[in-house]
Amino acid sequence: MKLFYCETLNPRKACAAARYLNADLEFVRVDLANGEQRTPEFLALNPNGKVPVLQYGDGQSLWEANAIMCFLSDMTGADFWPKDDRQPDVMRWLSWDASHFTLHAATLWFENELRPLFGQAPDPAVVEQAELQLRQFAQVLDSHLAHRIFVVADRLSVADFALAAALPYWRSARLPLDDFEHIKRWHDQLNTIPAWREPFPARPSAGG
Amino acid sequence: MKLFYCETLNPRKACAAARYLNADLEFVRVDLANGEQRTPEFLALNPNGKVPVLQYGDGQSLWEANAIMCFLSDMTGADFWPKDDRQPDVMRWLSWDASHFTLHAATLWFENELRPLFGQAPDPAVVEQAELQLRQFAQVLDSHLAHRIFVVADRLSVADFALAAALPYWRSARLPLDDFEHIKRWHDQLNTIPAWREPFPARPSAGG
Ligand SMILES: N[C@@H](CCC(=O)N[C@@H](CS)C(=O)NCC(=O)O)C(=O)O
Ligand SMILES: N[C@@H](CCC(=O)N[C@@H](CS)C(=O)NCC(=O)O)C(=O)O
Repeated sequence: MKLFYCETLNPRKACAAARYLNADLEFVRVDLANGEQRTPEFLALNPNGKVPVLQYGDGQSLWEANAIMCFLSDMTGADFWPKDDRQPDVMRWLSWDASHFTLHAATLWFENELRPLFGQAPDPAVVEQAELQLRQFAQVLDSHLAHRIFVVADRLSVADFALAAALPYWRSARLPLDDFEHIKRWHDQLNTIPAWREPFPARPSAGG
Repeated sequence: MKLFYCETLNPRKACAAARYLNADLEFVRVDLANGEQRTPEFLALNPNGKVPVLQYGDGQSLWEANAIMCFLSDMTGADFWPKDDRQPDVMRWLSWDASHFTLHAATLWFENELRPLFGQAPDPAVVEQAELQLRQFAQVLDSHLAHRIFVVADRLSVADFALAAALPYWRSARLPLDDFEHIKRWHDQLNTIPAWREPFPARPSAGG
């Protein structure tokens, strides 16, 4: 089993889950900067040309970070993707995250962090709109976390890793989240989990 | 049990699922144009101020259309949100839909259909970008559907209703999908399901 990844926002979820669950798989780095996600071999694994992708069994593949987290939880018999009546609640947060929370946070990551890497300036109108939206949705998550340790049923689940996907870029992407103390406390706590803090394999120091 | 809805893109998924599954619930219309989603009573059900919301049990509520579909499937003991190893595959398509396919289609719905309703012109740059992206992702779905009746394991599931959410607006939102024959065939087939074709309760003809 192989997990294709790069050290970016979405693959982090899949890599962190693989480590957290001690899944028996090989990490394969895809060099996005060099366009390795657009080779015919890679497009056969994921026609979207994106990481992460899980390759398993007899040439089968699964893409989308959330789906890979669930698959790995099932495979390892874990409770990380719960099988009982917590499921609709986990689904609520995965869906809300994709449509609202990480959507806007990832926009800020793209504008404030990736664009400058490629010598471009962030678009001020896009930044302003994403900040406004992110703050509005962050209020919902912050209130939810006020009396909770984790997002669903006080047990760590795929929902926590999904919702936290952009938070490692809190400073570098200038996410306007400093006023949300419960989000901060919850994310500090996720950072005590080694698999979340350091999800990616070490890279050869020559940058190869 | 009450399902709060309006005749728009996301509530359609929840309403269609409720009808398809014959769920025993009351439909409650929320007048978005009059801001009914921002009353304190409604915000207590969904702090995001959005429909759909399912109210159940002793004052509990579930928001996010995908989560409501799963909840109703579990509640009615249906196979619409499957419980076996199809789950990661369904999750793939729900996630891909929220992040890519319906994201861009809903942008076109907003620009080409909602904006004019409010006397605004569509933003040509936003429209162009969303068309480009939607076409690119539509190719992935079209190829996937080339040899399949439904999206996952040839059985109707929440993934089909999620992926089709914007397709009722195919013409009115000017979705650039006419070249994708398998998507068209699949959507024609969904339209043979009464619950999908007519998910919303009839409204009093005076428009009240
Ligand atoms: N919806 C996908 C998104 C994956 C994604 O956007 N991956 C990015 C890296 S964070 C990528 O591979 N981009 C390369 C490209 O689009 O060329 C998921 O959740 O896994
Ligand atoms: N992520 C939510 C989105 C719900 C949503 O955007 N609902 C719209 C109607 S399609 C709404 O209620 N808009 C009213 C508002 O935002 O004021 C879901 O999937 O249920």
